[in-house]
Amino acid sequence: MTLAILFGGSSYEHEISIVSAVTLKKVLGASHRLLFIFLDPERRFRLVDAAAMKSDHFASGAYKKDPVLSLGAGGFTLPGGLLKGSKPVAFDVLLNLIHGRDGEDGKIAGMMDFYSIPYIGPRLEGSVISYDKLLTKLYARELGIGVIDYRLLRREDPRPDDLEYPLIVKPLRLGSSIGVSVVRSPEELDYALDVAFEFDSEVLIEPFIEGIREYNLAGCKTSVWEFSIVEEPHKEEFLDFDKKYLDFSRDEKVREAVVDETLRERLEEAFKKIYDPLFAGSLIRCDFFVREGEIYLNEINPIPGSMAHYLFDDFPALIERLSSHLPAEAPIGVDYRYIHSIQKAKGKA
Amino acid sequence: MTLAILFGGSSYEHEISIVSAVTLKKVLGASHRLLFIFLDPERRFRLVDAAAMKSDHFASGAYKKDPVLSLGAGGFTLPGGLLKGSKPVAFDVLLNLIHGRDGEDGKIAGMMDFYSIPYIGPRLEGSVISYDKLLTKLYARELGIGVIDYRLLRREDPRPDDLEYPLIVKPLRLGSSIGVSVVRSPEELDYALDVAFEFDSEVLIEPFIEGIREYNLAGCKTSVWEFSIVEEPHKEEFLDFDKKYLDFSRDEKVREAVVDETLRERLEEAFKKIYDPLFAGSLIRCDFFVREGEIYLNEINPIPGSMAHYLFDDFPALIERLSSHLPAEAPIGVDYRYIHSIQKAKGKA
Repeated sequence: MTLAILFGGSSYEHEISIVSAVTLKKVLGASHRLLFIFLDPERRFRLVDAAAMKSDHFASGAYKKDPVLSLGAGGFTLPGGLLKGSKPVAFDVLLNLIHGRDGEDGKIAGMMDFYSIPYIGPRLEGSVISYDKLLTKLYARELGIGVIDYRLLRREDPRPDDLEYPLIVKPLRLGSSIGVSVVRSPEELDYALDVAFEFDSEVLIEPFIEGIREYNLAGCKTSVWEFSIVEEPHKEEFLDFDKKYLDFSRDEKVREAVVDETLRERLEEAFKKIYDPLFAGSLIRCDFFVREGEIYLNEINPIPGSMAHYLFDDFPALIERLSSHLPAEAPIGVDYRYIHSIQKAKGKA
Repeated sequence: MTLAILFGGSSYEHEISIVSAVTLKKVLGASHRLLFIFLDPERRFRLVDAAAMKSDHFASGAYKKDPVLSLGAGGFTLPGGLLKGSKPVAFDVLLNLIHGRDGEDGKIAGMMDFYSIPYIGPRLEGSVISYDKLLTKLYARELGIGVIDYRLLRREDPRPDDLEYPLIVKPLRLGSSIGVSVVRSPEELDYALDVAFEFDSEVLIEPFIEGIREYNLAGCKTSVWEFSIVEEPHKEEFLDFDKKYLDFSRDEKVREAVVDETLRERLEEAFKKIYDPLFAGSLIRCDFFVREGEIYLNEINPIPGSMAHYLFDDFPALIERLSSHLPAEAPIGVDYRYIHSIQKAKGKA
């Protein structure tokens, strides 16, 4: 199978997407033929030679010599020369590995569906729901899954003075902990809000619950449900962006969390509700909190760092199976029946 | 001002989008320079000569001779010949007039943002929320606006036998009453569900409330709030697709509904909550129900038929004002700071 890995993007997570792609080259390169399509910071698609897939190729600006692709009805094409036509970039399935804006906000999903390109990744609606932390909560609550209490604050709103501490401040729409702060006292609040409002005009405030257990579960649906091991992320209190960044380049397996069978089943049941049918075609990681026996959804990562490959036994085979279970938009036939019938009624046809 | 009207799309509402575009040519043609970009049923963008903007041009297939445009980093371009390069299609603002799939589901919004094309229309997130009737309800409820009770049914779910009649069955994600039925007795339910499931794998069931008053209010935010008159749609019980279709070609003003000042203000307050900030840049129509003094949101039309121009006093001037109040995505600078710092730590830089 030829897999095109799409990475980069006009996103605060541009660099971690590069790290994810470099990691997946190692993980998938032995079993699949890989192509690398880089969405540069100016949103030009470029075809990157597999041999050049090192982070320095991007940081040094060397990528600027890589050919720019066109995207249109036939998919991606390489430009032709003066006398020869453009050449299609052929692959079986595209893997959307753009974290954050462009990749996780629904743009890439919409464009792939628009041009009928088969892809692994969240579809448009799932993207929007997981990208916006408020929509994630509304959606989970509707499914009967617990969520942590919250308050939504807009940039123009007065700063609240009736909050309980410690709390956590999050930009509404970013991933990878960017702009997120734990706030322990009212004196720290203003600064934390200023930071979060750098990244979004809306911010969520949640209680920060000490000692809450966090469990991550990744998976997808092929002909059956396919789940990863349950991971309990190791962290000192709170994983900030620098630490998460290193996390994205992980290429070792992690140890399975010690959870009893009942909890594992309950996490899987919650995962299934969230995944089906909204996330069909994607491999997502759900991050749950567990407190006093109750499960809460913290967030949905529809494109987890390096696809959370380290949580699976045989990741290359899983990607192969998922590739043959991708939803596609239903075709809609247009027969101009209404216009014809109206013209007939008007005596024109 | 040069306005590019984008219409058509791979959508069940393809034909009414054509009717909307033909209508807007009449309404806006005297005051603005207009270009017409047709998204044909195979999702090719075509530049249509203003003189050809008649419904028969499309129904007859004559549009197939119109030039196909490319969409890329510089916007839309006309193909070049053998010896000359491609030529940009120049306009100030694009008006997204694609009803239903492609236009209202977020695809066009995502592509316009991706390629930095200024446009009137819902943004990606607003599109997804208004396109999915369940998300519309969750969102409205979160804002403190009433919604009609509902039950969500998936195609694979057992058919319910505990419903109260009359009720209304709606595909979750379509507009323009397509696939919608009023069901008066259990015997009619199966057929109505079959029809709705033709169009979506998920369906909403709501009570059908006899004699409920419906009020439509359109508007947008420029430097101030701009509201239409309140319309009480005249209908025999229920406006089906054929009647709505004719409705889209309306070019006369409608009579203002008789509503007292208090109700009007309450409708405007609900509209403002819904619109701001999610629908910035678009002109939307909110359809409300009023019953026993309570306001319920029925649906949000982020691209109403012929832009609900007939509800406004001076529609061309409104479009001009809205065109200078369009949100644009914030640029994100990528400086490869993290990769540089990690390389430094590794002793590589």
